[in-house]
Amino acid sequence: MAEASNPDTGKENPTFKIRRLEISDKRKGYMELLGQLTVAGPLTDDEFDRRFEEIRSYGDDHFICVIEDESSGKIVATGSVMIEKKFLRSCGKVGHVEDVVVDSEFRGKNLGKRVVEFLTEHSRSMGCYKVMLDCSVEKKGFYEKCGMFNRAIQMTKYFD
Amino acid sequence: MAEASNPDTGKENPTFKIRRLEISDKRKGYMELLGQLTVAGPLTDDEFDRRFEEIRSYGDDHFICVIEDESSGKIVATGSVMIEKKFLRSCGKVGHVEDVVVDSEFRGKNLGKRVVEFLTEHSRSMGCYKVMLDCSVEKKGFYEKCGMFNRAIQMTKYFD
Repeated sequence: MAEASNPDTGKENPTFKIRRLEISDKRKGYMELLGQLTVAGPLTDDEFDRRFEEIRSYGDDHFICVIEDESSGKIVATGSVMIEKKFLRSCGKVGHVEDVVVDSEFRGKNLGKRVVEFLTEHSRSMGCYKVMLDCSVEKKGFYEKCGMFNRAIQMTKYFD
Repeated sequence: MAEASNPDTGKENPTFKIRRLEISDKRKGYMELLGQLTVAGPLTDDEFDRRFEEIRSYGDDHFICVIEDESSGKIVATGSVMIEKKFLRSCGKVGHVEDVVVDSEFRGKNLGKRVVEFLTEHSRSMGCYKVMLDCSVEKKGFYEKCGMFNRAIQMTKYFD
């Protein structure tokens, strides 16, 4: 698979910039990217802006990161982490990672791993004692490469 | 197993009251109950109070429920739910259930199911499209009785 890499260093192409979600990312394909994970819309600009402000009000306790392909100005990967504050473990905190997705045209460039490592590092810097996420069995190998291990199962109930 | 039940109706003993966590529950064995789930302390009263206020500041987005045995004034079951606000699913919300535990002396009275149903109902009332939790494989049958099904696996990484 063709890697966008620097021939001198072998490192990943520096035009992939990882940073926090900005409100203008709505115009850079952010919702279309989420649509590759599951049903994303429909969503008006006003609804997007309101949700953005709601999430922003949590400060660093709800952190959404994106990777922008600076050459095209397109958002090509994302993931989020929510910091849970517990009483147990002497008021411990846990990072819950959600909604990790890489644009199908940009896979094989380690962008997913960069997203997970960024969110993991955010959780560590927030004082969490662990970070966790739920995924399909098929993704187990990928998350093991991110330093995680399978510890439990997820149970869920849908309302609709 | 002896059930504390009303002989006339066969219903659960009404002295088990389910409600939101109150700051005074610290003196009713709340931390000792969490200690049956995992390492809970040590924790000073000041640390408990500060964390209580932090969680309270999230309003209904972080809801901890308890069951009090009113005859003894002891907290005998608990569980929490954190409401995640997403962009996908047209700004959907998800309830993340955590830290469900029933006092070992009060098991077999359906208190765990009452806790899960209470948190599920809270999630539904908050507009969530689903509620989810992680558990050991051994607990799968219990959560199936709560109307949930196994959909994914949990991956985790510890920092300590």
